[in-house]
Amino acid sequence: MTDHALDRLHEAVLARRGADPAGSYTASLFRRGTPKIAQKLGEEAVEAVIEAVVGNRDALIRESADLLYHLMVLWADAGIAPAEVWAELRRREGISGIAEKAARGAAG
Amino acid sequence: MTDHALDRLHEAVLARRGADPAGSYTASLFRRGTPKIAQKLGEEAVEAVIEAVVGNRDALIRESADLLYHLMVLWADAGIAPAEVWAELRRREGISGIAEKAARGAAG
Amino acid sequence: MTDHALDRLHEAVLARRGADPAGSYTASLFRRGTPKIAQKLGEEAVEAVIEAVVGNRDALIRESADLLYHLMVLWADAGIAPAEVWAELRRREGISGIAEKAARGAAG
Amino acid sequence: MTDHALDRLHEAVLARRGADPAGSYTASLFRRGTPKIAQKLGEEAVEAVIEAVVGNRDALIRESADLLYHLMVLWADAGIAPAEVWAELRRREGISGIAEKAARGAAG
Repeated sequence: MTDHALDRLHEAVLARRGADPAGSYTASLFRRGTPKIAQKLGEEAVEAVIEAVVGNRDALIRESADLLYHLMVLWADAGIAPAEVWAELRRREGISGIAEKAARGAAG
Repeated sequence: MTDHALDRLHEAVLARRGADPAGSYTASLFRRGTPKIAQKLGEEAVEAVIEAVVGNRDALIRESADLLYHLMVLWADAGIAPAEVWAELRRREGISGIAEKAARGAAG
Repeated sequence: MTDHALDRLHEAVLARRGADPAGSYTASLFRRGTPKIAQKLGEEAVEAVIEAVVGNRDALIRESADLLYHLMVLWADAGIAPAEVWAELRRREGISGIAEKAARGAAG
Repeated sequence: MTDHALDRLHEAVLARRGADPAGSYTASLFRRGTPKIAQKLGEEAVEAVIEAVVGNRDALIRESADLLYHLMVLWADAGIAPAEVWAELRRREGISGIAEKAARGAAG
Protein backbone atom coordinates (compact mmCIF):
# COMPACT_ATOMS: atom_id res chain seq x y z
CA MET A 1 0.00 0.00 0.00
CA THR A 2 2.97 2.31 0.59
CA ASP A 3 3.52 2.12 -3.16
CA HIS A 4 0.41 4.22 -3.71
CA ALA A 5 1.15 7.76 -4.95
CA LEU A 6 -0.80 9.35 -2.09
CA ASP A 7 1.00 7.40 0.62
CA ARG A 8 4.33 8.21 -1.00
CA LEU A 9 3.33 11.87 -1.13
CA HIS A 10 2.50 11.78 2.57
CA GLU A 11 5.92 10.25 3.32
CA ALA A 12 7.63 12.92 1.23
CA VAL A 13 5.71 15.61 3.14
CA LEU A 14 6.85 14.14 6.47
CA ALA A 15 10.44 13.93 5.23
CA ARG A 16 10.47 17.58 4.17
CA ARG A 17 8.88 18.75 7.41
CA GLY A 18 12.21 19.36 9.11
CA ALA A 19 13.92 20.86 6.05
CA ASP A 20 15.11 24.45 5.75
CA PRO A 21 12.00 26.62 5.07
CA ALA A 22 14.13 28.78 2.79
CA GLY A 23 14.63 25.85 0.43
CA SER A 24 11.38 23.91 0.88
CA TYR A 25 7.83 25.11 0.25
CA THR A 26 6.56 22.21 2.39
CA ALA A 27 8.76 23.14 5.34
CA SER A 28 7.73 26.80 5.04
CA LEU A 29 4.05 25.76 5.15
CA PHE A 30 4.56 23.83 8.41
CA ARG A 31 6.43 26.83 9.81
CA ARG A 32 3.49 29.16 9.03
CA GLY A 33 1.15 26.99 11.07
CA THR A 34 -2.25 25.29 10.99
CA PRO A 35 -4.49 28.22 9.94
CA LYS A 36 -2.25 28.96 6.94
CA ILE A 37 -2.16 25.29 5.88
CA ALA A 38 -5.94 25.07 6.25
CA GLN A 39 -6.31 28.29 4.23
CA LYS A 40 -4.29 26.79 1.37
CA LEU A 41 -6.51 23.69 1.40
CA GLY A 42 -9.59 25.89 1.19
CA GLU A 43 -8.11 27.92 -1.67
CA GLU A 44 -7.19 24.81 -3.67
CA ALA A 45 -10.73 23.48 -3.16
CA VAL A 46 -12.16 26.73 -4.55
CA GLU A 47 -9.92 26.38 -7.61
CA ALA A 48 -10.98 22.74 -8.11
CA VAL A 49 -14.65 23.77 -7.83
CA ILE A 50 -14.17 26.43 -10.51
CA GLU A 51 -12.26 24.20 -12.95
CA ALA A 52 -14.94 21.51 -12.53
CA VAL A 53 -17.76 23.94 -13.27
CA VAL A 54 -15.86 25.52 -16.18
CA GLY A 55 -15.29 21.99 -17.50
CA ASN A 56 -11.50 22.26 -17.75
CA ARG A 57 -10.56 18.59 -17.31
CA ASP A 58 -6.76 19.00 -17.38
CA ALA A 59 -6.85 21.91 -14.94
CA LEU A 60 -9.08 19.85 -12.63
CA ILE A 61 -6.43 17.10 -12.58
CA ARG A 62 -3.75 19.64 -11.62
CA GLU A 63 -5.94 21.34 -9.00
CA SER A 64 -6.86 17.91 -7.58
CA ALA A 65 -3.14 17.17 -7.17
CA ASP A 66 -2.66 20.55 -5.44
CA LEU A 67 -5.66 19.83 -3.19
CA LEU A 68 -4.34 16.39 -2.22
CA TYR A 69 -0.85 17.76 -1.57
CA HIS A 70 -2.21 20.35 0.87
CA LEU A 71 -4.49 17.74 2.46
CA MET A 72 -1.41 15.57 3.13
CA VAL A 73 0.30 18.57 4.76
CA LEU A 74 -2.82 19.25 6.86
CA TRP A 75 -2.93 15.62 8.02
CA ALA A 76 0.77 15.65 8.90
CA ASP A 77 0.26 18.91 10.79
CA ALA A 78 -2.62 17.35 12.75
CA GLY A 79 -0.75 14.11 13.41
CA ILE A 80 -3.17 12.11 11.28
CA ALA A 81 -1.79 9.02 9.53
CA PRO A 82 -3.32 8.33 6.09
CA ALA A 83 -4.20 4.81 7.30
CA GLU A 84 -6.69 6.40 9.72
CA VAL A 85 -8.59 8.02 6.86
CA TRP A 86 -8.39 4.89 4.69
CA ALA A 87 -9.87 2.96 7.66
CA GLU A 88 -12.71 5.49 7.90
CA LEU A 89 -13.38 5.08 4.15
CA ARG A 90 -13.38 1.28 4.49
CA ARG A 91 -15.68 1.44 7.50
CA ARG A 92 -18.20 3.29 5.32
CA GLU A 93 -17.77 0.88 2.43
CA GLY A 94 -20.38 -1.56 3.69
CA ILE A 95 -22.82 1.28 4.07
CA SER A 96 -24.62 2.21 0.86
CA GLY A 97 -27.63 3.90 -0.65
CA ILE A 98 -29.96 5.56 1.82
CA ALA A 99 -28.14 4.02 4.76
CA GLU A 100 -24.94 5.69 3.56
CA LYS A 101 -26.76 8.99 3.29
CA ALA A 102 -28.19 8.75 6.79
CA ALA A 103 -24.77 7.82 8.16
CA ARG A 104 -23.21 10.89 6.63
CA GLY A 105 -25.99 13.05 8.13
CA ALA A 106 -25.96 16.75 7.32
CA ALA A 107 -22.83 16.23 5.27
CA GLY A 108 -24.86 14.04 2.87
CA MET B 1 -2.90 -0.62 -6.35
CA THR B 2 -6.63 -1.26 -6.76
CA ASP B 3 -6.52 -2.53 -3.15
CA HIS B 4 -6.04 1.02 -1.95
CA ALA B 5 -9.06 2.44 -0.13
CA LEU B 6 -9.27 5.46 -2.44
CA ASP B 7 -9.20 3.39 -5.64
CA ARG B 8 -11.84 1.07 -4.19
CA LEU B 9 -13.95 4.09 -3.26
CA HIS B 10 -13.68 5.38 -6.81
CA GLU B 11 -14.81 2.01 -8.16
CA ALA B 12 -17.75 1.96 -5.75
CA VAL B 13 -18.71 5.45 -6.92
CA LEU B 14 -18.64 4.32 -10.56
CA ALA B 15 -20.70 1.23 -9.71
CA ARG B 16 -23.39 3.29 -7.95
CA ARG B 17 -23.54 5.85 -10.74
CA GLY B 18 -26.32 4.06 -12.58
CA ALA B 19 -28.28 3.09 -9.45
CA ASP B 20 -31.75 4.39 -8.56
CA PRO B 21 -31.31 7.97 -7.20
CA ALA B 22 -34.11 7.26 -4.71
CA GLY B 23 -31.97 4.61 -3.04
CA SER B 24 -28.45 5.93 -3.59
CA TYR B 25 -27.00 9.24 -2.42
CA THR B 26 -24.19 8.80 -4.95
CA ALA B 27 -26.59 8.29 -7.86
CA SER B 28 -28.65 11.30 -6.77
CA LEU B 29 -25.49 13.46 -6.75
CA PHE B 30 -24.68 12.49 -10.35
CA ARG B 31 -28.27 13.23 -11.30
CA ARG B 32 -28.06 16.75 -9.83
CA GLY B 33 -25.08 17.57 -12.04
CA THR B 34 -21.59 19.05 -11.99
CA PRO B 35 -22.25 22.39 -10.19
CA LYS B 36 -23.99 20.57 -7.31
CA ILE B 37 -21.17 18.00 -7.00
CA ALA B 38 -18.60 20.79 -7.07
CA GLN B 39 -20.61 22.68 -4.44
CA LYS B 40 -20.52 19.66 -2.11
CA LEU B 41 -16.74 19.40 -2.56
CA GLY B 42 -16.39 23.07 -1.63
CA GLU B 43 -18.61 22.68 1.42
CA GLU B 44 -16.69 19.65 2.69
CA ALA B 45 -13.44 21.57 2.24
CA VAL B 46 -14.84 24.42 4.36
CA GLU B 47 -15.75 21.91 7.07
CA ALA B 48 -12.26 20.35 6.96
CA VAL B 49 -10.69 23.81 7.21
CA ILE B 50 -12.76 24.61 10.30
CA GLU B 51 -12.09 21.30 12.09
CA ALA B 52 -8.37 21.71 11.40
CA VAL B 53 -8.32 25.22 12.84
CA VAL B 54 -10.47 24.21 15.82
CA GLY B 55 -8.06 21.31 16.38
CA ASN B 56 -10.69 18.58 16.33
CA ARG B 57 -8.58 15.66 15.09
CA ASP B 58 -11.34 13.03 14.91
CA ALA B 59 -13.70 15.38 13.09
CA LEU B 60 -10.90 16.22 10.65
CA ILE B 61 -10.54 12.51 9.83
CA ARG B 62 -14.29 12.27 9.13
CA GLU B 63 -14.39 15.49 7.10
CA SER B 64 -11.34 14.32 5.13
CA ALA B 65 -13.22 11.12 4.25
CA ASP B 66 -16.24 13.21 3.17
CA LEU B 67 -13.96 15.46 1.11
CA LEU B 68 -12.30 12.50 -0.63
CA TYR B 69 -15.65 10.85 -1.32
CA HIS B 70 -16.97 13.96 -3.07
CA LEU B 71 -13.65 14.36 -4.92
CA MET B 72 -14.07 10.81 -6.27
CA VAL B 73 -17.59 11.71 -7.44
CA LEU B 74 -16.27 14.90 -9.07
CA TRP B 75 -13.55 12.93 -10.90
CA ALA B 76 -16.06 10.33 -12.09
CA ASP B 77 -18.37 13.12 -13.26
CA ALA B 78 -15.50 14.70 -15.23
CA GLY B 79 -14.32 11.39 -16.66
CA ILE B 80 -11.04 11.56 -14.76
CA ALA B 81 -9.44 8.25 -13.78
CA PRO B 82 -7.61 8.30 -10.41
CA ALA B 83 -4.50 7.01 -12.19
CA GLU B 84 -4.29 10.34 -14.03
CA VAL B 85 -4.03 12.24 -10.74
CA TRP B 86 -1.60 9.70 -9.25
CA ALA B 87 0.55 10.20 -12.38
CA GLU B 88 0.46 13.98 -11.86
CA LEU B 89 1.54 13.49 -8.22
CA ARG B 90 4.40 11.19 -9.29
CA ARG B 91 5.49 13.63 -11.98
CA ARG B 92 5.92 16.25 -9.25
CA GLU B 93 7.71 13.84 -6.93
CA GLY B 94 11.13 14.54 -8.37
CA ILE B 95 10.53 18.25 -7.98
CA SER B 96 11.27 19.57 -4.50
CA GLY B 97 12.10 22.62 -2.45
CA ILE B 98 12.19 25.89 -4.33
CA ALA B 99 11.90 24.13 -7.68
CA GLU B 100 8.64 22.54 -6.49
CA LYS B 101 7.37 25.94 -5.44
CA ALA B 102 8.15 27.52 -8.78
CA ALA B 103 6.50 24.64 -10.61
CA ARG B 104 3.31 25.11 -8.65
CA GLY B 105 3.36 28.83 -9.40
CA ALA B 106 0.68 31.00 -7.84
CA ALA B 107 -0.87 27.91 -6.26
CA GLY B 108 2.30 27.48 -4.19
CA MET C 1 -26.95 55.64 7.00
CA THR C 2 -29.10 53.36 9.15
CA ASP C 3 -31.60 53.44 6.29
CA HIS C 4 -29.28 51.29 4.22
CA ALA C 5 -30.54 47.72 3.67
CA LEU C 6 -27.36 46.18 5.07
CA ASP C 7 -27.43 48.24 8.27
CA ARG C 8 -31.11 47.41 8.73
CA LEU C 9 -30.32 43.73 8.19
CA HIS C 10 -27.63 43.92 10.85
CA GLU C 11 -30.10 45.51 13.28
CA ALA C 12 -32.66 42.80 12.52
CA VAL C 13 -30.01 40.15 13.17
CA LEU C 14 -29.18 41.72 16.55
CA ALA C 15 -32.88 41.94 17.44
CA ARG C 16 -33.45 38.25 16.66
CA ARG C 17 -30.35 37.16 18.56
CA GLY C 18 -32.25 36.62 21.80
CA ALA C 19 -35.32 35.06 20.19
CA ASP C 20 -36.47 31.47 20.69
CA PRO C 21 -34.19 29.25 18.50
CA ALA C 22 -37.21 27.05 17.79
CA GLY C 23 -38.90 29.92 15.97
CA SER C 24 -35.93 31.84 14.56
CA TYR C 25 -33.28 30.58 12.16
CA THR C 26 -31.08 33.52 13.19
CA ALA C 27 -31.33 32.71 16.89
CA SER C 28 -30.60 29.03 16.19
CA LEU C 29 -27.45 30.04 14.28
CA PHE C 30 -26.15 32.06 17.24
CA ARG C 31 -26.95 29.12 19.50
CA ARG C 32 -24.89 26.75 17.34
CA GLY C 33 -21.81 28.94 17.74
CA THR C 34 -19.01 30.61 15.81
CA PRO C 35 -17.65 27.63 13.80
CA LYS C 36 -21.15 26.83 12.49
CA ILE C 37 -21.84 30.46 11.55
CA ALA C 38 -18.45 30.64 9.81
CA GLN C 39 -19.21 27.37 8.01
CA LYS C 40 -22.46 28.80 6.64
CA LEU C 41 -20.59 31.88 5.38
CA GLY C 42 -18.09 29.63 3.62
CA GLU C 43 -20.86 27.55 2.06
CA GLU C 44 -22.73 30.60 0.78
CA ALA C 45 -19.50 31.91 -0.74
CA VAL C 46 -19.02 28.60 -2.57
CA GLU C 47 -22.56 28.90 -3.95
CA ALA C 48 -21.96 32.50 -5.06
CA VAL C 49 -18.71 31.44 -6.77
CA ILE C 50 -20.53 28.70 -8.68
CA GLU C 51 -23.47 30.89 -9.79
CA ALA C 52 -21.01 33.56 -10.96
CA VAL C 53 -19.01 31.07 -13.03
CA VAL C 54 -22.17 29.43 -14.41
CA GLY C 55 -23.38 32.92 -15.31
CA ASN C 56 -26.70 32.70 -13.48
CA ARG C 57 -27.28 36.39 -12.71
CA ASP C 58 -30.53 36.02 -10.71
CA ALA C 59 -29.12 33.18 -8.63
CA LEU C 60 -26.00 35.29 -7.93
CA ILE C 61 -28.24 38.07 -6.54
CA ARG C 62 -29.95 35.59 -4.23
CA GLU C 63 -26.68 33.94 -3.14
CA SER C 64 -25.17 37.40 -2.54
CA ALA C 65 -28.08 38.19 -0.21
CA ASP C 66 -27.53 34.87 1.60
CA LEU C 67 -23.81 35.61 1.86
CA LEU C 68 -24.42 39.10 3.28
CA TYR C 69 -26.99 37.80 5.75
CA HIS C 70 -24.53 35.26 7.15
CA LEU C 71 -21.77 37.89 7.18
CA MET C 72 -24.02 40.11 9.33
CA VAL C 73 -24.55 37.18 11.72
CA LEU C 74 -20.79 36.52 11.83
CA TRP C 75 -20.10 40.19 12.63
CA ALA C 76 -22.74 40.22 15.37
CA ASP C 77 -21.27 37.01 16.78
CA ALA C 78 -17.80 38.60 16.85
CA GLY C 79 -19.05 41.89 18.31
CA ILE C 80 -18.17 43.80 15.16
CA ALA C 81 -20.29 46.86 14.33
CA PRO C 82 -20.87 47.42 10.59
CA ALA C 83 -19.48 50.95 11.02
CA GLU C 84 -16.08 49.42 11.77
CA VAL C 85 -16.01 47.70 8.38
CA TRP C 86 -17.36 50.77 6.57
CA ALA C 87 -14.53 52.76 8.21
CA GLU C 88 -11.99 50.21 6.96
CA LEU C 89 -13.45 50.50 3.44
CA ARG C 90 -13.28 54.32 3.58
CA ARG C 91 -9.72 54.19 4.89
CA ARG C 92 -8.76 52.27 1.77
CA GLU C 93 -10.70 54.60 -0.51
CA GLY C 94 -7.79 56.98 -0.99
CA ILE C 95 -5.54 54.10 -1.87
CA SER C 96 -5.72 53.05 -5.50
CA GLY C 97 -3.98 51.27 -8.34
CA ILE C 98 -0.69 49.62 -7.49
CA ALA C 99 -0.61 51.27 -4.07
CA GLU C 100 -3.95 49.62 -3.28
CA LYS C 101 -2.56 46.28 -4.37
CA ALA C 102 0.53 46.62 -2.21
CA ALA C 103 -1.60 47.64 0.76
CA ARG C 104 -3.72 44.55 0.44
CA GLY C 105 -0.57 42.42 0.22
CA ALA C 106 -0.97 38.70 -0.44
CA ALA C 107 -4.74 39.15 -0.52
CA GLY C 108 -4.37 41.33 -3.59
CA MET D 1 -27.96 56.00 0.03
CA THR D 2 -25.02 56.61 -2.32
CA ASP D 3 -23.21 57.97 0.73
CA HIS D 4 -22.94 54.47 2.11
CA ALA D 5 -19.39 53.06 2.06
CA LEU D 6 -20.45 49.97 0.11
CA ASP D 7 -22.23 51.94 -2.61
CA ARG D 8 -19.24 54.28 -2.88
CA LEU D 9 -16.95 51.26 -3.14
CA HIS D 10 -19.10 49.88 -5.95
CA GLU D 11 -18.90 53.21 -7.79
CA ALA D 12 -15.11 53.27 -7.34
CA VAL D 13 -14.92 49.73 -8.74
CA LEU D 14 -16.94 50.75 -11.79
CA ALA D 15 -14.75 53.85 -12.29
CA ARG D 16 -11.53 51.81 -12.20
CA ARG D 17 -12.89 49.16 -14.55
CA GLY D 18 -11.55 50.86 -17.66
CA ALA D 19 -8.23 51.90 -16.11
CA ASP D 20 -4.82 50.60 -17.18
CA PRO D 21 -4.45 47.05 -15.69
CA ALA D 22 -0.75 47.80 -15.13
CA GLY D 23 -1.67 50.53 -12.65
CA SER D 24 -4.92 49.24 -11.17
CA TYR D 25 -5.49 45.98 -9.31
CA THR D 26 -9.22 46.38 -9.94
CA ALA D 27 -8.77 46.78 -13.70
CA SER D 28 -6.43 43.78 -13.79
CA LEU D 29 -9.05 41.66 -12.01
CA PHE D 30 -11.70 42.53 -14.62
CA ARG D 31 -9.17 41.73 -17.35
CA ARG D 32 -8.53 38.24 -15.88
CA GLY D 33 -12.23 37.42 -16.12
CA THR D 34 -15.13 35.98 -14.16
CA PRO D 35 -13.58 32.69 -12.90
CA LYS D 36 -10.59 34.57 -11.47
CA ILE D 37 -12.80 37.18 -9.77
CA ALA D 38 -14.98 34.41 -8.34
CA GLN D 39 -11.87 32.58 -7.15
CA LYS D 40 -10.71 35.66 -5.25
CA LEU D 41 -14.13 35.95 -3.58
CA GLY D 42 -13.90 32.30 -2.52
CA GLU D 43 -10.38 32.78 -1.15
CA GLU D 44 -11.35 35.86 0.86
CA ALA D 45 -14.32 33.96 2.30
CA VAL D 46 -11.97 31.16 3.41
CA GLU D 47 -9.77 33.74 5.13
CA ALA D 48 -12.77 35.34 6.87
CA VAL D 49 -13.94 31.90 8.03
CA ILE D 50 -10.51 31.18 9.54
CA GLU D 51 -10.15 34.54 11.30
CA ALA D 52 -13.66 34.15 12.74
CA VAL D 53 -12.89 30.67 14.11
CA VAL D 54 -9.47 31.76 15.42
CA GLY D 55 -11.23 34.69 17.10
CA ASN D 56 -9.07 37.40 15.56
CA ARG D 57 -11.54 40.30 15.56
CA ASP D 58 -9.33 42.90 13.84
CA ALA D 59 -8.30 40.46 11.11
CA LEU D 60 -11.97 39.58 10.58
CA ILE D 61 -12.74 43.27 9.97
CA ARG D 62 -9.96 43.45 7.37
CA GLU D 63 -10.95 40.17 5.69
CA SER D 64 -14.58 41.32 5.64
CA ALA D 65 -13.49 44.47 3.79
CA ASP D 66 -11.52 42.31 1.33
CA LEU D 67 -14.53 40.03 0.88
CA LEU D 68 -16.89 42.95 0.22
CA TYR D 69 -14.45 44.55 -2.21
CA HIS D 70 -14.26 41.37 -4.30
CA LEU D 71 -18.05 40.95 -4.07
CA MET D 72 -18.45 44.46 -5.54
CA VAL D 73 -16.11 43.48 -8.39
CA LEU D 74 -18.07 40.26 -8.96
CA TRP D 75 -21.36 42.19 -9.09
CA ALA D 76 -19.91 44.74 -11.54
CA ASP D 77 -18.57 41.89 -13.67
CA ALA D 78 -22.04 40.28 -13.74
CA GLY D 79 -23.82 43.56 -14.40
CA ILE D 80 -25.57 43.49 -11.03
CA ALA D 81 -26.40 46.85 -9.44
CA PRO D 82 -26.11 46.93 -5.63
CA ALA D 83 -29.71 48.18 -5.49
CA GLU D 84 -30.85 44.80 -6.82
CA VAL D 85 -29.30 43.01 -3.85
CA TRP D 86 -30.55 45.61 -1.37
CA ALA D 87 -34.05 45.05 -2.82
CA GLU D 88 -33.67 41.29 -2.32
CA LEU D 89 -32.62 41.89 1.30
CA ARG D 90 -35.62 44.20 1.87
CA ARG D 91 -37.97 41.69 0.25
CA ARG D 92 -36.86 39.15 2.87
CA GLU D 93 -37.12 41.65 5.71
CA GLY D 94 -40.78 40.92 6.37
CA ILE D 95 -40.05 37.24 6.50
CA SER D 96 -38.81 36.05 9.87
CA GLY D 97 -38.37 33.07 12.15
CA ILE D 98 -39.33 29.73 10.69
CA ALA D 99 -40.94 31.38 7.68
CA GLU D 100 -37.58 33.00 6.86
CA LYS D 101 -35.90 29.63 7.14
CA ALA D 102 -38.35 27.94 4.82
CA ALA D 103 -37.99 30.79 2.32
CA ARG D 104 -34.25 30.37 2.24
CA GLY D 105 -34.68 26.62 1.74
CA ALA D 106 -31.53 24.50 1.54
CA ALA D 107 -29.46 27.63 2.05
CA GLY D 108 -31.00 27.99 5.51
